[in-house]
Amino acid sequence: MEKFSPYIGGKLKATKQTFSVKNPFSDETIAEVYLAGSAELEEAIISAQRIEDELRYLPSHKKCSILMDIAQKMKEQRDLLARTLCLEAAKPIKYALGEVDRAIQTFIVAAEECKRLPSEHIQIDWTPAGEGKEGIVKYFPIGLVAGVSPFNFPLNLTVHKLAPAIATGCPIVLKPARSTPLSALLLAKIIDTTELPKGALSILPMDRESGNQLVTDERFALLTFTGSPQVGWNMKNQAGKKRVVLELGGNAGAIVTDTADIEKTALKCVSGAFAYSGQVCIHTQRIYVHKSIFNEFTTRFIELTSKLKHGNPIDATTDISSMIDEDNAIRIEQWVKEAIDGGAKLLYGGNREGAYYPPAIITNTKQDMKVCSQEAFGPVVVIEPYNNFSDAVGLINSSEFGLQAGVFTNKLDEQNQAFNELKVGGVIINDVPTFRVDHMPYGGVKNSGFGREGVKYAMLDMLEPKLLIRNYL
Amino acid sequence: MEKFSPYIGGKLKATKQTFSVKNPFSDETIAEVYLAGSAELEEAIISAQRIEDELRYLPSHKKCSILMDIAQKMKEQRDLLARTLCLEAAKPIKYALGEVDRAIQTFIVAAEECKRLPSEHIQIDWTPAGEGKEGIVKYFPIGLVAGVSPFNFPLNLTVHKLAPAIATGCPIVLKPARSTPLSALLLAKIIDTTELPKGALSILPMDRESGNQLVTDERFALLTFTGSPQVGWNMKNQAGKKRVVLELGGNAGAIVTDTADIEKTALKCVSGAFAYSGQVCIHTQRIYVHKSIFNEFTTRFIELTSKLKHGNPIDATTDISSMIDEDNAIRIEQWVKEAIDGGAKLLYGGNREGAYYPPAIITNTKQDMKVCSQEAFGPVVVIEPYNNFSDAVGLINSSEFGLQAGVFTNKLDEQNQAFNELKVGGVIINDVPTFRVDHMPYGGVKNSGFGREGVKYAMLDMLEPKLLIRNYL
Amino acid sequence: MEKFSPYIGGKLKATKQTFSVKNPFSDETIAEVYLAGSAELEEAIISAQRIEDELRYLPSHKKCSILMDIAQKMKEQRDLLARTLCLEAAKPIKYALGEVDRAIQTFIVAAEECKRLPSEHIQIDWTPAGEGKEGIVKYFPIGLVAGVSPFNFPLNLTVHKLAPAIATGCPIVLKPARSTPLSALLLAKIIDTTELPKGALSILPMDRESGNQLVTDERFALLTFTGSPQVGWNMKNQAGKKRVVLELGGNAGAIVTDTADIEKTALKCVSGAFAYSGQVCIHTQRIYVHKSIFNEFTTRFIELTSKLKHGNPIDATTDISSMIDEDNAIRIEQWVKEAIDGGAKLLYGGNREGAYYPPAIITNTKQDMKVCSQEAFGPVVVIEPYNNFSDAVGLINSSEFGLQAGVFTNKLDEQNQAFNELKVGGVIINDVPTFRVDHMPYGGVKNSGFGREGVKYAMLDMLEPKLLIRNYL
Amino acid sequence: MEKFSPYIGGKLKATKQTFSVKNPFSDETIAEVYLAGSAELEEAIISAQRIEDELRYLPSHKKCSILMDIAQKMKEQRDLLARTLCLEAAKPIKYALGEVDRAIQTFIVAAEECKRLPSEHIQIDWTPAGEGKEGIVKYFPIGLVAGVSPFNFPLNLTVHKLAPAIATGCPIVLKPARSTPLSALLLAKIIDTTELPKGALSILPMDRESGNQLVTDERFALLTFTGSPQVGWNMKNQAGKKRVVLELGGNAGAIVTDTADIEKTALKCVSGAFAYSGQVCIHTQRIYVHKSIFNEFTTRFIELTSKLKHGNPIDATTDISSMIDEDNAIRIEQWVKEAIDGGAKLLYGGNREGAYYPPAIITNTKQDMKVCSQEAFGPVVVIEPYNNFSDAVGLINSSEFGLQAGVFTNKLDEQNQAFNELKVGGVIINDVPTFRVDHMPYGGVKNSGFGREGVKYAMLDMLEPKLLIRNYL
Repeated sequence: MEKFSPYIGGKLKATKQTFSVKNPFSDETIAEVYLAGSAELEEAIISAQRIEDELRYLPSHKKCSILMDIAQKMKEQRDLLARTLCLEAAKPIKYALGEVDRAIQTFIVAAEECKRLPSEHIQIDWTPAGEGKEGIVKYFPIGLVAGVSPFNFPLNLTVHKLAPAIATGCPIVLKPARSTPLSALLLAKIIDTTELPKGALSILPMDRESGNQLVTDERFALLTFTGSPQVGWNMKNQAGKKRVVLELGGNAGAIVTDTADIEKTALKCVSGAFAYSGQVCIHTQRIYVHKSIFNEFTTRFIELTSKLKHGNPIDATTDISSMIDEDNAIRIEQWVKEAIDGGAKLLYGGNREGAYYPPAIITNTKQDMKVCSQEAFGPVVVIEPYNNFSDAVGLINSSEFGLQAGVFTNKLDEQNQAFNELKVGGVIINDVPTFRVDHMPYGGVKNSGFGREGVKYAMLDMLEPKLLIRNYL
Repeated sequence: MEKFSPYIGGKLKATKQTFSVKNPFSDETIAEVYLAGSAELEEAIISAQRIEDELRYLPSHKKCSILMDIAQKMKEQRDLLARTLCLEAAKPIKYALGEVDRAIQTFIVAAEECKRLPSEHIQIDWTPAGEGKEGIVKYFPIGLVAGVSPFNFPLNLTVHKLAPAIATGCPIVLKPARSTPLSALLLAKIIDTTELPKGALSILPMDRESGNQLVTDERFALLTFTGSPQVGWNMKNQAGKKRVVLELGGNAGAIVTDTADIEKTALKCVSGAFAYSGQVCIHTQRIYVHKSIFNEFTTRFIELTSKLKHGNPIDATTDISSMIDEDNAIRIEQWVKEAIDGGAKLLYGGNREGAYYPPAIITNTKQDMKVCSQEAFGPVVVIEPYNNFSDAVGLINSSEFGLQAGVFTNKLDEQNQAFNELKVGGVIINDVPTFRVDHMPYGGVKNSGFGREGVKYAMLDMLEPKLLIRNYL
Repeated sequence: MEKFSPYIGGKLKATKQTFSVKNPFSDETIAEVYLAGSAELEEAIISAQRIEDELRYLPSHKKCSILMDIAQKMKEQRDLLARTLCLEAAKPIKYALGEVDRAIQTFIVAAEECKRLPSEHIQIDWTPAGEGKEGIVKYFPIGLVAGVSPFNFPLNLTVHKLAPAIATGCPIVLKPARSTPLSALLLAKIIDTTELPKGALSILPMDRESGNQLVTDERFALLTFTGSPQVGWNMKNQAGKKRVVLELGGNAGAIVTDTADIEKTALKCVSGAFAYSGQVCIHTQRIYVHKSIFNEFTTRFIELTSKLKHGNPIDATTDISSMIDEDNAIRIEQWVKEAIDGGAKLLYGGNREGAYYPPAIITNTKQDMKVCSQEAFGPVVVIEPYNNFSDAVGLINSSEFGLQAGVFTNKLDEQNQAFNELKVGGVIINDVPTFRVDHMPYGGVKNSGFGREGVKYAMLDMLEPKLLIRNYL
Repeated sequence: MEKFSPYIGGKLKATKQTFSVKNPFSDETIAEVYLAGSAELEEAIISAQRIEDELRYLPSHKKCSILMDIAQKMKEQRDLLARTLCLEAAKPIKYALGEVDRAIQTFIVAAEECKRLPSEHIQIDWTPAGEGKEGIVKYFPIGLVAGVSPFNFPLNLTVHKLAPAIATGCPIVLKPARSTPLSALLLAKIIDTTELPKGALSILPMDRESGNQLVTDERFALLTFTGSPQVGWNMKNQAGKKRVVLELGGNAGAIVTDTADIEKTALKCVSGAFAYSGQVCIHTQRIYVHKSIFNEFTTRFIELTSKLKHGNPIDATTDISSMIDEDNAIRIEQWVKEAIDGGAKLLYGGNREGAYYPPAIITNTKQDMKVCSQEAFGPVVVIEPYNNFSDAVGLINSSEFGLQAGVFTNKLDEQNQAFNELKVGGVIINDVPTFRVDHMPYGGVKNSGFGREGVKYAMLDMLEPKLLIRNYL
């Protein structure tokens, strides 16, 4: 049985306590992990502080070559990384490979962006008081960063915190998800072989109590959290003077208008709804279809869903596997039942088997049912017809969340209305709300989050502007 | 009879020779203008050189307040300015007032932009060779500017050269159009009352021979010309080492698809086709209408055209008046005749009366007819049906010109195709190609021009970047 | 006795309770002000919500003309505004006039910036997954803004919240300082005469309890506070899901090197130290002078200080008047005494008379004395010699605050070191840390604040980015 | 004997005529090259036109991967590339290796920049006329590019034209220098193995007559030339409607003030003066040294120069080798003689041996001597003392050229004066004018050039802005 140690400022350190990481599909233990506590966190913080000044002055070519080196070494270990996260997260291997590729791309983007930090040159002489003066605004690393990453993209969402930290020159201490720490710890070993100064990175599997020190410790200048809305928002008011970035979830929706290409749209929507059992922040949970094509679309959607192959995540042909744990599968089972009991109609579905919950398609729902109003984070989708476009926009907006929305349309006025009126972080025309590439600004409004990630945008929160005013004449 | 003198570096100077400026509508002489020659040009250049360094160091708050002061004083003389250009250009007073308002706005935009000169801060340390170095790029005035402005917007197209010159700190010597120099000279008198250092501006009515020295004299760093394609392109190869910006004409076209709002579209197209007798660089000369609405659109277009009121430009209700001179009216008359002789059909039209040529609407043309392929710069429009959108795009592109195009559509795919494929400087969705606001980038491709105007963009051509590399560490 | 009412969404409303505003110099009551409470706040919030959508769609030319109109009307009432804030704040009239001029400039900058909202166009096709897609990021108003402004710049620091709110299209509810609400309420009356939609602005004098609802009420999307560090940081953890911007204070310092021009530097430093009795966030509290010029500089500094004229703030020749209240004068008196008791030497000073505390110059201090380490916000300055530049940098940094720093030097290496190493928001070369123009980014690090103001930068916090991804091909 | 063929749109094609490429050091023929003529150029143009549309729509990830692939393959052939250009140009191998590394970096920068094309989002509603409209400016490839590259950096200055062309999606036809075509043709073979669509690149060794068609042929939208001022400026007025970028030469100067570090400065200046025998556009030709350190500096400069090792360029220890041909060596010999005959003093020098001319250091010159006023492009440097900084600035500016200038100083006021007053494209503080990294904006003013290169800047000239205005509401 492989044992994984916390990575503390350049050292792998066993601790006194371990916990088991299981394959959610087989329920077998796949590794033991040493649990870090307050002492290890203290050590990580101290090693981070020690390296802070050196990182601050690292020239961009060095940061760039470190980041490119990590990307290169990840390419070389692509299969191992993918297998690891496949096993720890029950993520079908084809999606796991995709995630590794995206994580590599995230590092490459950071390698490029560290050479393009924001800056500004300002004419100060707009009034006589400023005559003969000019300003330069340069962005400096903000200081120590605390990161918390979730189970569902255990590699790439960790990288979305590490890569910007390296690119900006901020030391980072990261707590991976308790259930899926392996790929992150594997990545730490890879990074350890590069020239990144020791102390710049620590990855500590911790229990929630120790992890909470990441939130409250005033030595961190930034807390960047990706996870559930409830946990995230609680952190914000405990964070003291530090900055907080929250990437939370939602119940993202799509609008399918009568000018949409039904076949292409259905294909994308099935993927948006059921990829990785819907355990995705921008999972397509709600689909509003113009009434004139509702039947045709729904029929095709069900057909395509029925072709999804269930199985072992390590199998290359598997489309859908177990959820992260049985508790979550049970929760979805109950939500679906509650909806049906309340009058909703199950268009497609099946019985739960342990942690596996098969794709469920529901219609005739009420807006206050959990499957509509709360974040499912599971393989369930609600499809409803709508009459006119404004109704559909209203339905998307009648949510406490606002991450992304997809709008399938060929009409300019619908596109414009969607962009102006949808209360979300991103509107994706002719694709599902689940669409993301790693360099785009990503994040939600309302209860879905606070701030933006996406390398360049994540970097901004790790930087502090400083103004230099020079007398010029 | 009022006499206007050239404005030479702060002085109004009578010369030995005068010429008459006539009202093209009444053919009456409205003013005598002293003609500048080589001696006056030399004086203007020398006074410009003398002030160059002072202008270069003018703080932005001073440039801003000078530009705002000009705008304010133009507001106070709005009626006089409008009347003057109405009379010299036979521009209906309602359009003349609009032009004055736009010229004021052009100065206001320049007042704002002079505080926002481009600049850049560059990390130099992308390779070890650049370690410890940083770069700043700042933009400095390029030097003396030579401007040539046309008859059709004698005020605002002059201002599009003067305002950027003041905003960047470049002295400018401008030659207004021979037929319409009055409003520009009136503006010079206004500017003379501001704190703009003398020498920064000269406005010299010149014959073409003297004017050609603006093109060839090596003391000018930039020639900015607005006028006819033939004249403009000839200048480029005589310009020596200086920069050249050419704002020329075209035969702009619009596409009216079957998703367009016919009423709104027809209204806009009639204005685009006949405002100021089509003597506009982005005059809507060609309209391609989807065959399914061709008849309906054309009927409505003719109806609206028939309501245009012909008359004295000074009359507030006049929509259309005389062309700039009889020669041009005769030219249009011949082009229309040539088209009809070649098989085209005149849907609407009338007989020329002196310099007045009434609106002409033609269909069933061939592409090589002058009314299609050349720049009409007169009140003639060609309307043709098309079968599919790609055809319409092809028709717009089958021209040696490429200034702007209008596309009336509610379809995203048509918008995208138009933007990708139309060979023009600007694509205006749901408006005529004749649309322009003064801060947008404006200019053509192919034979329509070289470079862009639009205050900020015109300013760029009047600025020279200079890099400062500093050792930082 | 003039009575001032809260301005609630377009209406001036008397309430049941009033409080007196006194002239700190004469201790006379100059006005009665109706105190707003929860009911008025609720009304303000509801009127703000009602207008939110209309503001959101206001075209930029309308926002611009409203802001310019306010600026114009303030110019017309310059004297009244200056007198009002002179009387309520005991601010010498020459500084009061300067503040009005700056407030006008702040509105003008906002008028220009509302036409230049940030935006971004992003190539999405960096990976095959993004092929055929492009992104636009546009910034939308964030929603309701709660503002809290301080007593020391009762007009301009209020405007730094109002003007960006209008420019971005966010309704704002602002609580002015309890002791100096008059100029803000006078401004409300001016704004009421413009075309700003009613509901967009409320100004409510409130007690702290009611005011605290601005912090906790979830209907506000942003809290922007300018005031004391203690109050500000407490707010941050009560603010729930809203954004928070804190502009707090500090104990700003200057470094005077041996390449400085002593005469110019001393003049600037005396102004930085004693203008408005040091009641300025970026008050020059600490001056570190190279030992080789310490005596010469200090002698000149004392001479210049001795020429400052004490008197009635309404007198045009008055340089220094009473502090905002006697409590603060007593506090400064105690701090100075404590320093002297601890071994510091008073180079210049005098006795407190009521709320007036005369300029005090101290040397031979220890770093943990209150006059060094805490925010004095009063007319006291510490001058100490230093040996080498790194020491001086270290002294500036040995503070829990970090707003701005001034460095008087002609050496490139000192400038670079200062910019790289000083832990502040802004480094001003050859001027005091007290330097500010209203369009520059302004704000502190460490305990001095959270976020930046300066119109464009304040606007950024009032805007939410939204991404539109379009399928392009 | 290796034979090199022109690379025409994807094919290597022998022609009827060949010419010999010689090693300037040994005078031995090292390769035969087939000469392209009008027929081959025609073929290249046609293949370029054929691929134009496909290139235009290449997604950025494909352009990026092509460019990175070229860089990777160049790394693999680093030695061969370096040897080739070492032999054809007599460039000492250590500099040749450096040039290959820089050329690789140039491709990497282009790979990154093609994902970051310029673009703009513009609020159109600054006036009522623009209400409801928004603008996007996107940059499209301009069309066919004609490139002409010089002998002195036969690889990297070729890459500075190819890489931006690929990054922007413009087909390019390039004429390498007649004397040094081999490394460019070797690069063509490398590029041929990548996925760059055939037709996108042609490299044609041509005689000047055929080459002149690159200037005059209207099918090219841009001519980008690097070479001598005389040839370049002649091209500009023959170029018709196309854009022209000229990267020409100069007689760059450095100022060494009394605050400079003499040892470091002398080291950098010797390198700037004699690297590659001064055959560098930004060769340090003139050094103005503050009189107080003139003797000390000059002594050290001579010492360091005397240590330069002359020899075979392929030898790793060689610092200086033959010039490109004997004619140029003779020219320098004559210029030096002329200076001495006119009263100048040779501080260090030796006798010409064939194409080898040893480093020459001259003082006591007059400004109109060729070694001062013209472009030497050879191993000669003029060192003169100056009295005050303004004099030194004046001396630098008393030249018809203005490429870059170096200023060694630790004074802020000297830096500022230099940046404001020096008439050059770039001011390098504390380094020689010869400093260049490949992503910085590079180019001259006055007779030194027209436009800027430096990947991103070169790309701008290969792009045409197009405005899209959309009705938004």
